Parts: sequence; structure tokens; C-alpha cells
Amino acid sequence: MRVGFIGLGNMGSGMAANLLKAGHAVTVYNRTPAKAEPLVAEGAQAAADLAGACRGDAVVTMLADDAAVEAVTQGEAGLLASLPPGALHISSSTISVALSERLTAAHAAAGQRFVSAPVFGRPDAAARRELFVLAAGDDEAIEAARPLLEAIGKAVFTVAEAPPAANLVKLSGNFLIASIIEALGEAMALVAKGGVDRERYLEILTGTLFGAPVVRTYGGLIARRQFQPAGFAAPLGQKDIRLALAAGEALRVPLPLASLLRDRFLSLLAHGGDQLDWSAIGQLAARDAGDA
Amino acid sequence: MRVGFIGLGNMGSGMAANLLKAGHAVTVYNRTPAKAEPLVAEGAQAAADLAGACRGDAVVTMLADDAAVEAVTQGEAGLLASLPPGALHISSSTISVALSERLTAAHAAAGQRFVSAPVFGRPDAAARRELFVLAAGDDEAIEAARPLLEAIGKAVFTVAEAPPAANLVKLSGNFLIASIIEALGEAMALVAKGGVDRERYLEILTGTLFGAPVVRTYGGLIARRQFQPAGFAAPLGQKDIRLALAAGEALRVPLPLASLLRDRFLSLLAHGGDQLDWSAIGQLAARDAGDA
Amino acid sequence: MRVGFIGLGNMGSGMAANLLKAGHAVTVYNRTPAKAEPLVAEGAQAAADLAGACRGDAVVTMLADDAAVEAVTQGEAGLLASLPPGALHISSSTISVALSERLTAAHAAAGQRFVSAPVFGRPDAAARRELFVLAAGDDEAIEAARPLLEAIGKAVFTVAEAPPAANLVKLSGNFLIASIIEALGEAMALVAKGGVDRERYLEILTGTLFGAPVVRTYGGLIARRQFQPAGFAAPLGQKDIRLALAAGEALRVPLPLASLLRDRFLSLLAHGGDQLDWSAIGQLAARDAGDA
Amino acid sequence: MRVGFIGLGNMGSGMAANLLKAGHAVTVYNRTPAKAEPLVAEGAQAAADLAGACRGDAVVTMLADDAAVEAVTQGEAGLLASLPPGALHISSSTISVALSERLTAAHAAAGQRFVSAPVFGRPDAAARRELFVLAAGDDEAIEAARPLLEAIGKAVFTVAEAPPAANLVKLSGNFLIASIIEALGEAMALVAKGGVDRERYLEILTGTLFGAPVVRTYGGLIARRQFQPAGFAAPLGQKDIRLALAAGEALRVPLPLASLLRDRFLSLLAHGGDQLDWSAIGQLAARDAGDA
Repeated sequence: MRVGFIGLGNMGSGMAANLLKAGHAVTVYNRTPAKAEPLVAEGAQAAADLAGACRGDAVVTMLADDAAVEAVTQGEAGLLASLPPGALHISSSTISVALSERLTAAHAAAGQRFVSAPVFGRPDAAARRELFVLAAGDDEAIEAARPLLEAIGKAVFTVAEAPPAANLVKLSGNFLIASIIEALGEAMALVAKGGVDRERYLEILTGTLFGAPVVRTYGGLIARRQFQPAGFAAPLGQKDIRLALAAGEALRVPLPLASLLRDRFLSLLAHGGDQLDWSAIGQLAARDAGDA
Repeated sequence: MRVGFIGLGNMGSGMAANLLKAGHAVTVYNRTPAKAEPLVAEGAQAAADLAGACRGDAVVTMLADDAAVEAVTQGEAGLLASLPPGALHISSSTISVALSERLTAAHAAAGQRFVSAPVFGRPDAAARRELFVLAAGDDEAIEAARPLLEAIGKAVFTVAEAPPAANLVKLSGNFLIASIIEALGEAMALVAKGGVDRERYLEILTGTLFGAPVVRTYGGLIARRQFQPAGFAAPLGQKDIRLALAAGEALRVPLPLASLLRDRFLSLLAHGGDQLDWSAIGQLAARDAGDA
Repeated sequence: MRVGFIGLGNMGSGMAANLLKAGHAVTVYNRTPAKAEPLVAEGAQAAADLAGACRGDAVVTMLADDAAVEAVTQGEAGLLASLPPGALHISSSTISVALSERLTAAHAAAGQRFVSAPVFGRPDAAARRELFVLAAGDDEAIEAARPLLEAIGKAVFTVAEAPPAANLVKLSGNFLIASIIEALGEAMALVAKGGVDRERYLEILTGTLFGAPVVRTYGGLIARRQFQPAGFAAPLGQKDIRLALAAGEALRVPLPLASLLRDRFLSLLAHGGDQLDWSAIGQLAARDAGDA
Repeated sequence: MRVGFIGLGNMGSGMAANLLKAGHAVTVYNRTPAKAEPLVAEGAQAAADLAGACRGDAVVTMLADDAAVEAVTQGEAGLLASLPPGALHISSSTISVALSERLTAAHAAAGQRFVSAPVFGRPDAAARRELFVLAAGDDEAIEAARPLLEAIGKAVFTVAEAPPAANLVKLSGNFLIASIIEALGEAMALVAKGGVDRERYLEILTGTLFGAPVVRTYGGLIARRQFQPAGFAAPLGQKDIRLALAAGEALRVPLPLASLLRDRFLSLLAHGGDQLDWSAIGQLAARDAGDA
């Protein structure tokens, strides 16, 4: 397929490269043009502007946040103005449910097709084509997008027909991980103040009922107080919990555990945690116990 | 070894049977004598009273709660009065850290040895010798107890030298599971009200980053609202969270997520949930969202 | 002074009437023109459009929310375009800190003066000139506005030089009231389930240490389950807590009690509470206790 | 009346003195006999032991906690063994609902009458006979006790017929005050980080809707960070919140705000706050905001 790709950050670069490897004709665009060079070396075309990335069957966006996605979709040169009728916009960014709703309506009004396709996985997984893709949109649009979705992930899960549903599931996933971080943080603060070595505790957890990678990974970071370098920075975690709470507010779903996480992230950031991994919220229980 | 076994409930019966299978000479005692009969048929001796179970190298207790453990340890006929000097008391019940501290001191004063050895696992795991044993006590006592501990579990983890540390780890484990139940309950309330099918959501979770058995098991119960029969009844979950909070209070460790769980369990019980599985707290987020 | 007044709802009508009574020349504007009629009968001029209310020394806005204030300030016919250089915009609406910051910057850029002057008090207090006015802005602007501020309230409190500070204090006040409602709700749920009559309990509270009007008023509503008609509707309370949390997020101040209130309001609204007084969150503790 | 008085601490000394002033024949007992001397100088008899204080129509106990009350009621020389049939035990200590229930049953079994009569007020109020007395018990017992209750307080409120109801109301009162402290702490953390002077903020609060003495007193302590000397020490506040939560647990009433307060007190104590006034929890919101 002929596909544009907008957003060549750590995630997007790997995803675009995998589209190329799968044989698609990829035109890339990035605000900082230098990031396009490695992909051009692998066979991509470089677009001079947004409209230049909108001339194929589809365009994939992988950007930092709502503001970045709005910047490329709105305006005279944006996707809504540039994409041909019937073309696909595949949005893989972690954005708010509310923006996904607005994009759903705007693309429909413009005669374009919109698939929401956020992903689970980090940059290394993106590069190795090991992402999990959460796709939502009407069946026909998802089927049209499938060759692209399968090129970027190892599995594609259809969520529902309404595109925002995929964004909601993505946000819920990050909420679940942050919840486990908080639970581990409290448990570790408790047992450590009770005389149990934190590393030993983690061995016991992972050796018994809690062998899941998420426990092993984040439990290890908390046990060792090893919050730098940030695999996923605290402000991004804070943003995703904020978006989950905003979705809950719009749907009128109280989320007390998410509210607790919100306050944890704010406290972390208030104490200079912007550069830390989001798992650093897992140390706050120990801090509150005077045992930091 | 010659070992007494006190407490032949769902857990204890399987544990005592495995001690027999491992070749130990087991004398069993239960308040309701009929429960001893199947074990006698397998080769156990039945003691007529507590003291009768205290004549070997060790006695294992596996009882419902603090009160039951205090009832068998205190008093003229209790373990403290009956166990010979140097004999072992291996306590596998899920009890409070405070009681474990009192037993540690009392057995030391009586010249006996105390090993705290709570377990992770349900009755079926106890019967199949698939428990994880968390052992705490001084090294020499744990080594003396090891043949018994290995007979009842598939792995023995030493936690620390102070016996109460094992109780703390056990309680923290149940806190972690309840935390995951709460997180799943909130996530499912959110996505379901946002239009995602709960069963589909669980497939996505378990097919991506959240394949751990605890997610699969409890997520399924929450998705299907299937809280009966109770694998682990809500009042037991409430008790364990209470004990974790009490341990946190004694150690001055704030535990906001545990406090949230406390209130969830109280609300569940206030609405008649005594017979439900503890995972029924995972439905309360949906109830609060008017989507029960 | 010659002053425009925009927003003739329950609050604004009383405030504009008091400006007239104090001898100011008032030009009123309301989206629904009929609401201007009683004030015209008392001597006000009616403006045909926003610009018509912007020809004096100052304009006061008293509107429902951020969106309404943005609607009258932005655009070709809005205040920013219409107010003469040096004229005052006195904003009495309960709006977000973020909007107040944007208005501060925009009026400065336009050469106009901005005073943030939200009020404590309900419509009856507005009508009787019993509002408390919280004023923030540079000293000179506040002095210029003072004759107007004193005409609408019984006391004017200067908060700080930055206009958003007054909005923050206003939001904090509603947060404090909602906190007291929650505290009363929990206390009443506890004692009532313990066998104490709710009305009797309230008599004891108000007769001892808790005689403040806020306890008397809201305690009475909770004790009698009397949440209609709404003096201050639940969605407005929810909005103000949301704005307080948003301010906390921008300033990185965790607010766990505000988070609890947020979830209370969402649960209330999820169960159809849109028409209820905001004190209806005070019944949720009893509901959670199975004692609604 | 002929009355014994047990517990001559800061509160009890003033209460016993007022019984004397009202003309009652008072026999005092205290574990540390020297504390009885000033009262003997005013006309009291000093008892050599507990039984010596149990020979009149009634005995009043005013002690530190559950353990102290159990120590004087149980045992061969305790009140249950020493009080004549029909005599009154008036318990003014702040004790648990559970202990009050046990005392109710035990005195009934012993043919004695039990009135629970905790008080609102500090030592200076006790000395000036300005306490509020919360009395619960059967009508006839309360009427019998009334001359004594009226001698120690400026007002007597009957709560219910079951004695524990008065203890519940007393605990709920301390919960309400702690809730207001928390609310003020969060509000002040928010506005202060937003640039509002804390003292100025308090002036605004007390000058507008929040003029109640509790706001003035505790708001001032929080604004000035003045937590020593302790008027009511943090460990006592922590104890009362614990008792309120325990009562909620027994009645199955979730209390999320009380749970938040619990964690606040634990964090305060974990950071060395044992000597601070309980209002020091009002600084924790600022600490969490990095603005301590």
C-alpha cells in the first residue's frame, strides 16, 4: 500500500521501518527533517510537508500527545484538509478519548476513514515488530488497514467499532501497570520496614505467585531504587493517568485507584521527578513511611 | 520425623497427608475429631487432645485465624505448656504479625523453637503438594524444620530470621492480589461503560501484556460477575487486608491502596457479600459508576 | 461609574441591581434579552450586543463557566476587541485558574485592565448585597474597581496581585465546603448505623463544637435526605472540584481529599443526581454502608 | 451524691474539682497518689485503692485509653468486683465502642448501672466546667447520673439508650475536626503554592464563610507551622481515628476520609511527629507538594 507516516520519534521510526520491510511504499514526514534520513536510506520517500504525506491510501500518525496530533490534523495543511476521500487515517498515538471522538467525527465529515490503533510496547518492541496493536473502527476500515497494522505489530486486536474504544483500552493498560507499581511500592515499603530485604522479597514474589514480567521489571526498579535512565518518563505516566481520569469523568466512572496514582505522580513531579522513570512513584510509599 | 498436626481444615488435611506420604510419623488433632478419620486411614495417629499432638519433634498448626491459634497455644493444655524443650512449633496459619511476635517471644521463653511458615496456595495446591512455603526463623530452626516444610510444598523460601517477617510477606501477597483485583475492577468499569465488551477486554489484556494467571483468573470472574462459589471468601480477604493495615500501623507505614481495599471489602460485606468470592470487590467500581 | 454588566442569571441580576442602587450608570447585556427587562425598569440601559456593554469605564462579567466567559471575551465582538484602552474587566464568574491566567495576559496585551473578583454567596446574598468579594489584580486596578466591588458585596478582600489567585481562593472555598459535606456524610453514616438518630446527632453537633452555619445547613440536608430543590446543583459542585484539581495539577499539588470528592460527585451523577443539591454526596457514605 | 473519681490527669482533676464545688462528696483515686493532694485540699477524700473509691452511689472514670479503663474495671479489686449493686459507673474516657459494649454487658451482669459519658472539651474547659457531656445509657440511669454530669459540664446531651452510642459520637467528633484539619491543609497547600500568603488566606476564610473557631484555631496553627507545644498530641489523634475506623469496621461502614486521615497520622508519626499537635497532619499536603 501507499502510506504516509507522520512522527518519527523512538516509536514511529521503528514502525515506519517495519512498514518498509513489509513492502509498503512509505512517505515519511517529521517536523525535524533529519529524523527522516535513516528511513530514506532504507527506501522511504521524504515529504516536504504534511500534505506530501497524505497522497496515498493511508497515513499513520505516531505523535507525543493530543496537541501534536491536533497540530497535524487541523489547519489548511493538515490531514483533514489534505487526505483524499476514502483514505485512511490510522492514529497510533496515545491520545485522549475526547480527541479520538473529535477525530472520528471530523474524518467522517470529511469523507475519510479513521482507525484508532494505539499500541502496547516500547521502542525496542516497535523496532522488532513486537508491538501489540489495539484497533478500533468500522470493520471495513480495519480490514483496509490490516496489512499496515500487521506490518507494525506481532498481533492485532480489534476492540470495538467506535475508534475511541481503542484509546480507552490503551489508557486502561497504562493505568493497570501503574496500579501494579503502586501496589508493589506499598508492599515493599511495608515488608522492608518490617525487616525483609527488598531484593529477597522480590525473589520470593517472582518465585511464587507473581512471576509476571511487569512485577519482575518494575519490582526490580523499586527494590534497587533505580529510576534512571527513564524507560517511560514520569510526566508521560502522569499524562496517561490524567487521560484515564478524564475519560472516567466524561463517562461518570469514579476511579479511586487512578486518583491515588494521580496524586502520586504529582508528588513525584513536585519533588523534581521529571527525569525519572514512572516507576519512581513506587518509592513514595517508603518515603511516606520515613524510610526513603 | 515425629510430628503433630493441628487443624484439619481444607488446607491442613492436604498438608498432613503429604507429611504422611513423605514418611513422617504424624499425630493429628482436630477440634472436630471426625476430620481426623481419613488421615488415620492413611496411617496417622489420632491424638485425643492437644497435648497428645505435642510429643514429637515438632508440631504444625494450620488454623483459621489469630483466635484459633491463640486457643491452641495458650492455656494449660496448649502448645506452650505441652511441647518439650527444643521442640519445634511450625505455624502455617495466616495470622497477624503481632501474634507472630508474641508467639516468638513465648516459645523462646519456654525453651521451644518457633518457625513461622505461612503458605501461598489454595486447598487443591495443598493436596497436590504445590504450596509455596514462606519460612522465617533462626537458621538452625529452619534447617530442623526443612524436611517437614519440603514435604508440604514444592518450594521453600526463607524470608528472614525473625518469624513475623514471613507473616508480613504472606499478608503482603494477599494485598497484592487484592490490589490487582481492584485495578481490574476499575479498568473494566471504565472500558465497559465506554462500550468495550468485558470478555473481549479480558482477551486483549491476557493476549498482550497481562497474561499472568492472576489476571486471567480474577479478570474472568469480574468480567462474568461470577462470584459464587467463593474460592476465597470475602470475609477472609477483609481479614487479611485488616491484618496488613494493622502491621502497617505498628510499623508506621501508610498504605493508601490497602485503605481503599479495606473500604471496598466493608462495602461488599455491608451489602451482603459474606458468601461471595473476594474478587467481588472488583464489581464495586462498576456499581459506583451506576453500571452494576 | 459607567459600567457594563454581562450575565443576568440568578447571581448577576442581583449584582447588577446593586450597582444601580449605588448610583452607577449600568448598561446590561444578556444572551436572552428578556432577563434585562427588570433591570431596565430600575434604570439600566440595555445593550443590543456585547460591544454595547463595553463603552464605559468597566465591564463586569458573571457567567456560568469557562466556555461562557471565553465566548464573551474572544472574537470580533468580544470584550478583548471592544473594551477601550485602560478600561476594566471585572470577572466575577467561578472560572478556572488557567482561564484567569489567559485573560490576565490577553487584557494586558490589549492595554486593558483585568481584575478577578469572584464572590462567596448565593443568589439571595447577591440580591441583598451580602456577597463576599475576593479581589485580585494590581493595586491600581483594584482601587479603580473598588466602588463597583463595594456596591456588590458587603466586604471586599484583596487576595494578591495576580488575578488568578482570587479564582484559586474561590475554588478552595468550595472545596472546603464539599470536604465538610463529605466529613458529615461519613460521620452520619457511622453513627446512624450505630443506632444514633441522625437529627439528634445533628443537634448534638451544632449544640457543641460544630455550630457553624455550614454544618447546620448541610448537616440538616444530609440528616433529612433533603436534596431537592438544589440550592447549588451537583454538576456545579463537580465542576468546581474539577477546577480545583486542575489547579492542583498545574501547580503539582496532590489533593487526596479533593480526589475523593471528585469520585463522590461522579458516582452521584452516574446515579442520576444531576438535579440534586451538591450535598447529596453526603449520602454516599451511607449508601456504601448499605444503609441508604 | 457520694461519688468516687478515678483518673486525675489534666481532664480528670478539673472534673473532680467541679464535682466538689457542686457539693458532692468525692473520693478520689489515682495510680500516682500525689495527684490527689490538691483535691484533698479542696475537700475530697483520698482512697487508698480502687475499692475505696467504689463505696458511694457512683464512680466516674476518666482515663487515657482502653487499656487503662480495663485495668481499673477488671480484676479482683476492679470496679466490676467492687461496686455495690445498683451503683453507677460513669465512663468519661475516650474509649473504643467495643470496650463500651463489653462494659455495658459486664455491668449489667454484675447488677450495676453503666452510663457512658465522654466529653467534648480540653483541660481548660474541664477546669472551667465548660465541657459538653455526651451521655448514653438507659433513661433511669442517666437521670440518676444527671446531678454529676451537670456538675462537670455546661450542657448534657443524651445520645441514645445504648451506652456505646455516646462513644461513637465522641469519636465521630474528633474525626470531624481531623477532617477539617486535612481540608485546610490541602486548601492551604494549594493556594500557597499558587502565590497566596497563608496568613492572608486564613484572614479571608475566617472573614467570610469560615469563621468557626475550629477553622480559626487549626488554620492558624497550619498557616504558622506552629505545632508545638501540642494541645492534643498526634498519637492521641491517631488513636481516635483508629477507634473510629474500628467502629466502622464492626458496623461495616466504609470511611474513606477517615482512611486518608489514618495514613496522614501514620506518615506524621513515621517522620518523628509524636510530640507535635495533631494539626501537624495539616502540613503534609504541602510536604507532598514539595512546598514544606
